[in-house]
Amino acid sequence: MTGFATLDDLAFPPFEPGTVWLVGAGPGAPGLLSLLGYHALQQADVIVYDELVADTLLAMAPATTERVYAGKRGGKPSEKQADITLRLIEWATAGRKVLRLKGGDPMMFGRGAEEAMALAAHGIPFRIVPGITTGVGGLAYAGIPVTYRDTNHAVIFLTGHDETGSIPASVDWAAIATAAPVIVMYMAAKHLVSIAEKLIAAGRSRDDSLAVVCHATLPDQYTIDATLGTAGEIVGAIQTPAIVVLGPVGALREHLAWRVGALAENPLG
Amino acid sequence: MTGFATLDDLAFPPFEPGTVWLVGAGPGAPGLLSLLGYHALQQADVIVYDELVADTLLAMAPATTERVYAGKRGGKPSEKQADITLRLIEWATAGRKVLRLKGGDPMMFGRGAEEAMALAAHGIPFRIVPGITTGVGGLAYAGIPVTYRDTNHAVIFLTGHDETGSIPASVDWAAIATAAPVIVMYMAAKHLVSIAEKLIAAGRSRDDSLAVVCHATLPDQYTIDATLGTAGEIVGAIQTPAIVVLGPVGALREHLAWRVGALAENPLG
Repeated sequence: MTGFATLDDLAFPPFEPGTVWLVGAGPGAPGLLSLLGYHALQQADVIVYDELVADTLLAMAPATTERVYAGKRGGKPSEKQADITLRLIEWATAGRKVLRLKGGDPMMFGRGAEEAMALAAHGIPFRIVPGITTGVGGLAYAGIPVTYRDTNHAVIFLTGHDETGSIPASVDWAAIATAAPVIVMYMAAKHLVSIAEKLIAAGRSRDDSLAVVCHATLPDQYTIDATLGTAGEIVGAIQTPAIVVLGPVGALREHLAWRVGALAENPLG
Repeated sequence: MTGFATLDDLAFPPFEPGTVWLVGAGPGAPGLLSLLGYHALQQADVIVYDELVADTLLAMAPATTERVYAGKRGGKPSEKQADITLRLIEWATAGRKVLRLKGGDPMMFGRGAEEAMALAAHGIPFRIVPGITTGVGGLAYAGIPVTYRDTNHAVIFLTGHDETGSIPASVDWAAIATAAPVIVMYMAAKHLVSIAEKLIAAGRSRDDSLAVVCHATLPDQYTIDATLGTAGEIVGAIQTPAIVVLGPVGALREHLAWRVGALAENPLG
């Protein structure tokens, strides 16, 4: 036996009734799901999934598995987070195998830690299955590495809006601006112009490369090139989900844009 | 048909002869490899793998696939990087399907961008398959989220040594120290005390939580708790590979350490 079928003979950890698995689905392409994540998809009784989880990925679960949408659109206040958590607890308490499937990685701006804290507080056993975070894997699909020997030995990841939909008040924009050459921004489309202004005011060059990858890893992926100073001219062209990267690595796309034009033929990634 | 066998009927992208796939193996546990990465493992003619790729993961490739070790130990100068790249180019030119398998993610302090740049310069077609980076997924296995609503909306990732084995001169330690509450450090064991001193000198509290996860996601994973000021007392207990995290998220382990003691029973992750 060869190929994926071989894996059916291996001892993946059992998905116990009454437990919740918090699984990262990755940036979007189904092929970027982990083997453990796929295993969970096959074993779950109920899948509670987010806005950013692709239909093609959900289609990999057995047809009989219950699917529950718990999406939230980026930038809007979340009124449902408490409800989602309550449902996870309720179903696990009832003895179901609950798969909480989130876009990207659950622990990287994914509210996974908050859900896990609630599960822990209620004594619900859980497991975390990491996913490929879009700020790394999504950018790679556009030929942009987050680190490169000649440009940076540090990289900053931040979110462009907090739980209320505002620019996060806790981010020290003045310090962030010059602390590392590369800054990756999640959910930053809404406030991109304001963020760019803060960074420029703090001393970041308005000529620094700004790249925006929309629908990263999906068949309709596209990339927008700009600079920090021209952010205002390109915001209208951004479709979410989008990942933004500031810094010299954006220029490497010229050499490393391995997939341009071909993703449409490879829906798995 | 159910389970993994179903995937053998799907149209994964073909691994064309004469191409190189740069694949991230993830933190170590085989179950964290992506579906695309597993597909590549089945299709490759030759696998060129790093120090940090687990034997259990390599064992998933067909027995007849050629395996070539190209390891480099953390902290030592790399004299072989040019040789590795030359071999990738040579084999691809000869029409082989070359899988370059790297621990973690190839683009996050993995030198993947350098190898991809060399391939591009020689006109070798390549593809990047992202992996789960240890600084996110490895910490999750120890119950440490890199972001949490109550603690941080930004996180810094940096490497503790550069290509020569020294502390990276390009890192602005004074700016980094206070730019974000959470700092994740790769390959930082060797220079941990020096780095801690630099951060303290720049104003970071010596009482800040410092957690070190050794052999993350593997059956012998263990975590060391310290503070920035007591780094010198715990360096002797660190076994590499190790991932270091500074900041308040380390304290969440108390609630989220879902896997302590159980990984030994689950070699797949």
